[in-house]
Amino acid sequence: MTRPPAHALVAEFVGSLLLAALVIGSGIAAQRLSPDDGGLQLLENAAASAVGLFALILVFGPVSGAHFNPVVSLVDAALGGLSWRRFVLYAPTQVVGCVTGAIVANVLFDSAPVSISTTDRATWPHGLSEVVATLGLLLVIFSLTRTGRGEKAAAAVGAYIGAAYWFTSSTSFANPAITLGRVFSDSFAGIAPSSAPLYIVAQFAAAAIALPLIRLLYPAVRHEEMTA
Amino acid sequence: MTRPPAHALVAEFVGSLLLAALVIGSGIAAQRLSPDDGGLQLLENAAASAVGLFALILVFGPVSGAHFNPVVSLVDAALGGLSWRRFVLYAPTQVVGCVTGAIVANVLFDSAPVSISTTDRATWPHGLSEVVATLGLLLVIFSLTRTGRGEKAAAAVGAYIGAAYWFTSSTSFANPAITLGRVFSDSFAGIAPSSAPLYIVAQFAAAAIALPLIRLLYPAVRHEEMTA
Amino acid sequence: MTRPPAHALVAEFVGSLLLAALVIGSGIAAQRLSPDDGGLQLLENAAASAVGLFALILVFGPVSGAHFNPVVSLVDAALGGLSWRRFVLYAPTQVVGCVTGAIVANVLFDSAPVSISTTDRATWPHGLSEVVATLGLLLVIFSLTRTGRGEKAAAAVGAYIGAAYWFTSSTSFANPAITLGRVFSDSFAGIAPSSAPLYIVAQFAAAAIALPLIRLLYPAVRHEEMTA
Amino acid sequence: MTRPPAHALVAEFVGSLLLAALVIGSGIAAQRLSPDDGGLQLLENAAASAVGLFALILVFGPVSGAHFNPVVSLVDAALGGLSWRRFVLYAPTQVVGCVTGAIVANVLFDSAPVSISTTDRATWPHGLSEVVATLGLLLVIFSLTRTGRGEKAAAAVGAYIGAAYWFTSSTSFANPAITLGRVFSDSFAGIAPSSAPLYIVAQFAAAAIALPLIRLLYPAVRHEEMTA
Repeated sequence: MTRPPAHALVAEFVGSLLLAALVIGSGIAAQRLSPDDGGLQLLENAAASAVGLFALILVFGPVSGAHFNPVVSLVDAALGGLSWRRFVLYAPTQVVGCVTGAIVANVLFDSAPVSISTTDRATWPHGLSEVVATLGLLLVIFSLTRTGRGEKAAAAVGAYIGAAYWFTSSTSFANPAITLGRVFSDSFAGIAPSSAPLYIVAQFAAAAIALPLIRLLYPAVRHEEMTA
Repeated sequence: MTRPPAHALVAEFVGSLLLAALVIGSGIAAQRLSPDDGGLQLLENAAASAVGLFALILVFGPVSGAHFNPVVSLVDAALGGLSWRRFVLYAPTQVVGCVTGAIVANVLFDSAPVSISTTDRATWPHGLSEVVATLGLLLVIFSLTRTGRGEKAAAAVGAYIGAAYWFTSSTSFANPAITLGRVFSDSFAGIAPSSAPLYIVAQFAAAAIALPLIRLLYPAVRHEEMTA
Repeated sequence: MTRPPAHALVAEFVGSLLLAALVIGSGIAAQRLSPDDGGLQLLENAAASAVGLFALILVFGPVSGAHFNPVVSLVDAALGGLSWRRFVLYAPTQVVGCVTGAIVANVLFDSAPVSISTTDRATWPHGLSEVVATLGLLLVIFSLTRTGRGEKAAAAVGAYIGAAYWFTSSTSFANPAITLGRVFSDSFAGIAPSSAPLYIVAQFAAAAIALPLIRLLYPAVRHEEMTA
Repeated sequence: MTRPPAHALVAEFVGSLLLAALVIGSGIAAQRLSPDDGGLQLLENAAASAVGLFALILVFGPVSGAHFNPVVSLVDAALGGLSWRRFVLYAPTQVVGCVTGAIVANVLFDSAPVSISTTDRATWPHGLSEVVATLGLLLVIFSLTRTGRGEKAAAAVGAYIGAAYWFTSSTSFANPAITLGRVFSDSFAGIAPSSAPLYIVAQFAAAAIALPLIRLLYPAVRHEEMTA
């Protein structure tokens, strides 16, 4: 069971912060340590993100559901697992958490606290990649929580994201909050402000595809939170 | 318990599609990002395939058994876990899913939607590799499902495939549907049409070896699906 | 349940020794085998540390709690999970174990048994990194042990440390005992004596931040040891 | 419960064969695909060995205990988990299985079926490394099986071996049967016949150290096999 709203918001804020610090910080480290090898950079970034995400979901799952992601919260609300009132509180908390995490990552690596990314990512294959990546993420989460296997969600989400960095050309942001956070670090994991809207639209579009598919394949007999 | 046939076919189709997109897409990314290092390419492709497969089996296991593979469905039918009628529906669905997934991977990476692979892989060591790789895969799956440990199959299959990419010279396709799908992408994970028949024959030959060995070592007292 | 104190001290000593040998030894191997690639060195060191730590916590958890870390023992004592009397025995045992492990690593790799590291790491971003890294480690451990999920701690801690090597600029020592042990090996994982105090102060500072956060988010209804 | 002796011997033979094919085959692939990077070769070899071993222990655990290793069987017999009569059957089966697996690996990679390794590994640091590596392996296995956590052994042993490849200078053979098997492949994972005796002596010496330590720390109240 999730705990009172204030605790859940603290968990979503700290978790989103740490998620952004993880994704962006490991990207900075990869870029600095493997400067001439784009493949090795992504391998380092993906491996760190996957195992770190596994840990973060375990930590915050029992408190808030460990969404860290407005699209996940939206689908959870649409499926009846989260109240709409709580969704309205979760989404901005996740965004502020991820932006703060970007700043933390920059500071930990002795960069300017805020820098705006110049990495242009807005192409149609990237947009399609975000649709596929987010759709997969939603299937992973809700196939498990709707079939009594929520305790496997932490491992499954970490593993899925580690794979999705590779099988999409966008490297699978799959999360509007982390997309906005990544605007604020001009480093490996960054995204230029002009590219962010395409990513975010694609991520929400995935929710529209995921919802009927989830309802079809997993007609929930019970609902639980990730790692509940 | 698996759900009604229509749901299972949707699951096998979407799962096979995502499996092919995973294997081929991560191969394209590896090839582009690590152009000069064949070892690193395979490491990236294997790692992504292993963790992604883990997630996909968790997602679709409760709906269809998450076979994505006609040889697995064949052995399951021979062992009494799948009706022959359903096998006849599963196998073509898996093939169409994998071919569609190849096209999706090509599109996500801004390549021509369909390209026929020119990677010739037809040698006897490759054929023998496919026999060993597929035999191992069948042992992993049915040793678990026939001993009440089906919930471990997702992790075990992902891990096994990640290893089998390395310990065989064929990089372990171990699946006729994915073999056919990989024909349709002229990229890292592709296979030339002329090489596919050897692979597919070897994969079905493995089933003939696996069946008596599975019956000997795991005389099922109960049967369950992967991740049931 | 932890066993009698003498057994627990043996476990903390042998476990801390093996932890230091793991972290330092894999660093030496990485440095020797990948001499020109700092990113690959850290990937090798992080991967070995993560999976090895998973195994070590499983081995020693039921005997001593598998802390290997004075900050973890301190927070456990403050939260009522470890007697203060045992904390006073654990902390020096962990330090002596880690220093012994550094010597073992040096010997296994045919280096001088003791060499003092010359790697200067004392910068403010490194200090802040240690605060964040240690805070995260404490959240991982105590979120699990205080919510009846102690058996997941081995996997979660291994995964978290593997990630934290990458998302902090300090490569996440997060442990005063291992910090002191790493002074005694002038190799990849080493730290100069002059840099150690900053790290250790930062690690204990994290405990002060972690304690109220843990009490807020995880008001324990029951307590258990890691991997209990 | 293990099954009748004949089944267990089949399992130990096939499992040892696949283990040797895994370790040696992935070494050949790593050597061929990453010819100029010793670190990357070991990373590829270690990752494949770790995840493959996880799968193999899951497959054969319920049939034979999945030892694949005379030192493990010896300690199991000394601790009362395996009859001495069965130990006498297991040990040679494991050796023959591993030698056969070396031949299989050579054939799968289109090498001469048998080639004698010329890799000299006989130094004292290598010998000490084998003592430490084998001691750690025995602690992992028997700490779990003697505390009711045998089902975690597959993951723990795989993870431990993956780490031990890195934190020892010998790359952690930790198994007399695999040591003998690796004599028969003049490739990355091979060992010259003249070096094998030192390794094997060190591995059995570790058993002498492990036994009293296991009895001290894990006074078994019950016994079970790995993955039981």
